[in-house]
Amino acid sequence: MPAETNDKLSELDTPCLLLDRDRMASNISKLKEKLRGLGVVLRPHMKTAKSQEVAKVLLEGTNGSITVSTLKEAEEFANAGITDMIYAVGISPQKLPRINRLRSSGVDLKIILDSKEQASALAKYVSETGDAIPALIELDADGNRSGVKPHDKETLLTIAETLRDGRARLEGVLTHAGASYDVEDEAAIIAAAEQERKAVVDAATTLREAGFECPIVSVGSTPTAHYAQDLTGVTEVRAGVFVFFDLVMAGLGVCTTDDIAISVLTTVIGHQKEKGWVIVDAGWTAMSRDRGTARQKVDQGYGLVCDSGGNVIDDLIMVSANQEHGIIALRGEVKDLSGDFPVGTMLRILPNHACATAAQHQEYHVIENGRYTVVWPRFNGW
Amino acid sequence: MPAETNDKLSELDTPCLLLDRDRMASNISKLKEKLRGLGVVLRPHMKTAKSQEVAKVLLEGTNGSITVSTLKEAEEFANAGITDMIYAVGISPQKLPRINRLRSSGVDLKIILDSKEQASALAKYVSETGDAIPALIELDADGNRSGVKPHDKETLLTIAETLRDGRARLEGVLTHAGASYDVEDEAAIIAAAEQERKAVVDAATTLREAGFECPIVSVGSTPTAHYAQDLTGVTEVRAGVFVFFDLVMAGLGVCTTDDIAISVLTTVIGHQKEKGWVIVDAGWTAMSRDRGTARQKVDQGYGLVCDSGGNVIDDLIMVSANQEHGIIALRGEVKDLSGDFPVGTMLRILPNHACATAAQHQEYHVIENGRYTVVWPRFNGW
Repeated sequence: MPAETNDKLSELDTPCLLLDRDRMASNISKLKEKLRGLGVVLRPHMKTAKSQEVAKVLLEGTNGSITVSTLKEAEEFANAGITDMIYAVGISPQKLPRINRLRSSGVDLKIILDSKEQASALAKYVSETGDAIPALIELDADGNRSGVKPHDKETLLTIAETLRDGRARLEGVLTHAGASYDVEDEAAIIAAAEQERKAVVDAATTLREAGFECPIVSVGSTPTAHYAQDLTGVTEVRAGVFVFFDLVMAGLGVCTTDDIAISVLTTVIGHQKEKGWVIVDAGWTAMSRDRGTARQKVDQGYGLVCDSGGNVIDDLIMVSANQEHGIIALRGEVKDLSGDFPVGTMLRILPNHACATAAQHQEYHVIENGRYTVVWPRFNGW
Repeated sequence: MPAETNDKLSELDTPCLLLDRDRMASNISKLKEKLRGLGVVLRPHMKTAKSQEVAKVLLEGTNGSITVSTLKEAEEFANAGITDMIYAVGISPQKLPRINRLRSSGVDLKIILDSKEQASALAKYVSETGDAIPALIELDADGNRSGVKPHDKETLLTIAETLRDGRARLEGVLTHAGASYDVEDEAAIIAAAEQERKAVVDAATTLREAGFECPIVSVGSTPTAHYAQDLTGVTEVRAGVFVFFDLVMAGLGVCTTDDIAISVLTTVIGHQKEKGWVIVDAGWTAMSRDRGTARQKVDQGYGLVCDSGGNVIDDLIMVSANQEHGIIALRGEVKDLSGDFPVGTMLRILPNHACATAAQHQEYHVIENGRYTVVWPRFNGW
């Protein structure tokens, strides 16, 4: 690490969020290359980064396509000139007017639904406004969350017919293999990817056999995107966390800790020597309360500690977090570290869950070629 | 609940944070009255609310005093005209110039420390700038976090002497009974309050006997503030979460669920009928990842569900949360609730931890006399 890095970083107020642009670029190009080989396109999920600057890198100057998890994201990215979006959270009728406003401004915003009642509400809205908001049917590939069961032909066709009868537009099918975050090994992720593919492809087949077009066949989760062996029948992959990666993904084997592009910069503010505690100014407001690695083989506490240059310090983790205090200690060992990390020492903490940690911050402090360069704003809220 | 409430609420975009001003006012006046009876003043901790409007209610138009957990809070509340503050997180030398800037603008901002190295750094800064930033020595009343052990006379006097020799200002002693959040019953909270009182009073006695003034003797946590029987020797109490209260405090018996002043308004977006799931548009970005009740007798999941008027629905909790999805189900029972809560139904979720849930939001939607009235901004960050 060149000396300039630390000199620049030492001027930052802590805690703050760092983004290693080189690691991010590498993560993005690796997944794009993988998906190109499988003949599908990436529709990145912007819920992780929530940054117009990160979107520019992902989209390479084009105006789409992306996935969003909130209408705030849709509006912010519309302001950045992006026009092709799926809002990938089940729709409630109250949100349709806000979607209509975005569509009226030229954004091809698509929604998802998984019930006849939502399809009826959409059909009613279409008849009132004339805006044939395109809808995808959400499938439940793995019992994780929302969606129609892939082989529930009756519900699939009822939704499709309700949309058709209401002159709404059925745009395709979509699923998310959320259970792939909780599996044990590589073989299980590969199996989850095939299960995810089959869920949407089977549903698309059912719909097409009944005479419905189904142009978009969409899957997506960061683990399955990286381990899919075959995506025949799929048209696009959605993934978000891969842009930054995190300790949960490293624990799954989807990346290494050296791929993790975001970290929280923090400063030592005290010690409890006899307990082996180093106390820092990053608490759960900076890290989030996410404890995703608690259910993995290696529990990383609230995060894995690096020096200020970003080099992992083996087995040093944030064992506990209060609102503005983090307690750092060696895993399973009590050792006075006050000499190694005196008050004022700057450290970086790799997060369990990139989406959750980034959501605690309003900006990225970007590092490029090992040097702190610029601030990129991010947004939160709905 | 008058019909107008729901009519007004139904126009809000969900998820969003509601604040019941009447409940908040009642919570504030109850604690103030209790402390008046014990002869001490309240120095409210603004880390929970982070709102100038809430500060106005707490301070009844005066210009202090408050506690803050970040320098961002100090700056925001200085802009609101508040001049008496303690920054109650151990100091790192890098933060002293920012503190000096605030003090130069007329804010009596005090800091805390618990080591000779911090005292030396402060003394050095005082000698360089002439700003005798007042410091309190932090005590570790219960092994929970930072602080000098109350009977570690040597460290106490070393810090005091270092400050005096460096012409810095020793302003008093301070502790936080953080362990009181994790106790089993009322008797244990009463004991924690006495332990907290004794820690600072004993340390103040040690310092005074050695010739050091110790004008401020400060304790504080919401549980101990409510259960303290005697605060002889204490000059002020800090507490923050009591303004809103939450399920962790209700689980401890410090309040009831009817005292909880904040909730997340959310909309039903789907169901998995055979699992008894109601899916809503409030996930962990709206609730936070805090699972504080997981270690209590009654685990409330990610929150306890109320109807849109704020009435608790017994045993209906948010059992799981993704980024923008919450899964609601009955505690220990699988029942199809899709008829009771169809898509579009609005619900409110009471949070585990008010500080953590509020930190996920940028504004409060204020309810007064049962009616939605106004938006109060809040801030986050450092």
